[in-house]
Amino acid sequence: MAELKNDRFLRALLRESVDRTPVWMMRQAGRYLPEYRETRAQAGDFLSLCKNAELACEVTLQPLRRYPLDAAILFSDILTIPDAMGLGLYFETGEGPRFERTVRSMADVEALKTPSMETDLGYVMKAVSTIRQALNGDVPLIGFTGSPWTLATYMIEGGSSKDFRHAKGMLYDQPEVLHALLSRLADAVTDYLNAQIEAGAQAVQIFDTWGGALAHDAYKTFSLAYMSKIVAGLKRTHQGNKVPVIIFTKGGGQWLESMAQSGADALGLDWTTPLDEARSRVGKQVALQGNLDPAVLYSSPERIRDEVERILAEFGKGSGHVFNLGHGIHPQIDPEHAGAFVEAVVELSPKYHR
Amino acid sequence: MAELKNDRFLRALLRESVDRTPVWMMRQAGRYLPEYRETRAQAGDFLSLCKNAELACEVTLQPLRRYPLDAAILFSDILTIPDAMGLGLYFETGEGPRFERTVRSMADVEALKTPSMETDLGYVMKAVSTIRQALNGDVPLIGFTGSPWTLATYMIEGGSSKDFRHAKGMLYDQPEVLHALLSRLADAVTDYLNAQIEAGAQAVQIFDTWGGALAHDAYKTFSLAYMSKIVAGLKRTHQGNKVPVIIFTKGGGQWLESMAQSGADALGLDWTTPLDEARSRVGKQVALQGNLDPAVLYSSPERIRDEVERILAEFGKGSGHVFNLGHGIHPQIDPEHAGAFVEAVVELSPKYHR
Repeated sequence: MAELKNDRFLRALLRESVDRTPVWMMRQAGRYLPEYRETRAQAGDFLSLCKNAELACEVTLQPLRRYPLDAAILFSDILTIPDAMGLGLYFETGEGPRFERTVRSMADVEALKTPSMETDLGYVMKAVSTIRQALNGDVPLIGFTGSPWTLATYMIEGGSSKDFRHAKGMLYDQPEVLHALLSRLADAVTDYLNAQIEAGAQAVQIFDTWGGALAHDAYKTFSLAYMSKIVAGLKRTHQGNKVPVIIFTKGGGQWLESMAQSGADALGLDWTTPLDEARSRVGKQVALQGNLDPAVLYSSPERIRDEVERILAEFGKGSGHVFNLGHGIHPQIDPEHAGAFVEAVVELSPKYHR
Repeated sequence: MAELKNDRFLRALLRESVDRTPVWMMRQAGRYLPEYRETRAQAGDFLSLCKNAELACEVTLQPLRRYPLDAAILFSDILTIPDAMGLGLYFETGEGPRFERTVRSMADVEALKTPSMETDLGYVMKAVSTIRQALNGDVPLIGFTGSPWTLATYMIEGGSSKDFRHAKGMLYDQPEVLHALLSRLADAVTDYLNAQIEAGAQAVQIFDTWGGALAHDAYKTFSLAYMSKIVAGLKRTHQGNKVPVIIFTKGGGQWLESMAQSGADALGLDWTTPLDEARSRVGKQVALQGNLDPAVLYSSPERIRDEVERILAEFGKGSGHVFNLGHGIHPQIDPEHAGAFVEAVVELSPKYHR
């Protein structure tokens, strides 16, 4: 493997000194880029794109050709795991992800397949190693997964949901079934992230997209506990290099103190928590990643720059900050505005590291 | 007007002593009740139901016939105001609320009508006085409105939205247009709530359903500031009685300290903030209303009772707590489960007030 030329992102996650604040964007390989839409059309549908290592590599690299980003992130989907457990993932146009089967009883949990990282999810590992090779050491590659709770919501509901009726019904009425499901998922996710690390991922992120929909105590019991279990089971060094772990609960700003105890190296933040406040609440336990409202990218490059400056000042001097959006970039964003964001971080952040 | 027989709700909002914790449910007059569905079918559509004082009164009273609730809430919709400002509200089946016209420029803001509380919104005041009379002093009547920011999102987007693309675009790119719109709305909402108070509302609540979608500083500037302005402009006593004001920002748990400075008597909480933590953060400045996850009502009556006990214990002894759900009751809830919730509060709460 080529030696890593830019380790700013990894160093900031470990709260080591850097020359400027590293930056990447959640969903940076995505529909806002015309070249992505072209490759996706070539692949056919979204799942075919995820399953084709060459094309997944191509879309992963596209944003790096446009912007001076400090990390690449594997192009894939969080629902590869439930799919590999036998639920039959498909995408309906305009409807989002759906499963052919749902999980609503202990028998359903017991019927789940334990996914093989070689046969069932080998296509993900092939994408990881293909991308890692193609990156040629330019920037580190991030692997990722959904959190057990987030994956469970899709598996129980059979797709996306607004109120998590069935998943929360199970949480309150059949907690033992939900715990059994989350346990199976935590094991699968641990294997999945470790396989990604073996295949070349240099940092990993757990996306807990729906943890913020839970009541405060339910969050700790049904989401955070399983993320902590995963973190404890990960290979934290690979080939002599540390592999940092980020956990990101959208809407989790109230629970940062608990999240900081998870064993993760860094916490992702949405735009509802001021970084100075977050920093003082978590102390030196973890680095912080975030937290520009993705909607700011609808505004002018000048305004974007002002908001970047505001957030840099909010975090203040010193390492331990990875700049990012507070959630994925929206598909309607002008690529030039995304560029203005990344460039503002590159240009404005060095003064916070002198 | 008949004398008020049950003032537990009003007293708790003012942090005066009570014999037990008062309870009501957001959206308690709603689709989960078969008698509501019948009256609504009789009215034709949702808007016709809101505009018919007799039928609006009927659905307001329905949950009170079933459950020992401590307050009634006006049956209406938050979008009556933008409708009265000339945007042309309509409801598409399965699509939620829509407007014929949107507000996207200063000219659009200037073209808005200043609504008359007599001619344009007289039907709301007629519903308030009809309900107040029919209640005959059994429990107090709550009036309500949407917050300026929440109303603005619908007016700018033209209906519901997931990412508030246009509203947030305006916030970051044309803040002066958004401020002009919010200013107009704050004036209209102040008049609207004062007219409801004149017509018989004994407490009022401002629903800031979408404040939680804002970045922390944007929340203060574009939502909380306008709610505070409204609170400052309200008649806080009417016919010798205090009229308490509640503000409820869904997803606002991180900002309680700022919300407590708004001048409101009480803050509504969703289920993501523990009540003990909230109580210690706001001190004696405000009462707290909440905060059972409405999804708990999918579970068994025994489980519902356990969760009620947990929340009562979390708030602890003393007044200043109004029990409620953390958001509106879901349409699929079994009315017997709603009953189990209300009865649990009635039965379990007296020990916290001795």
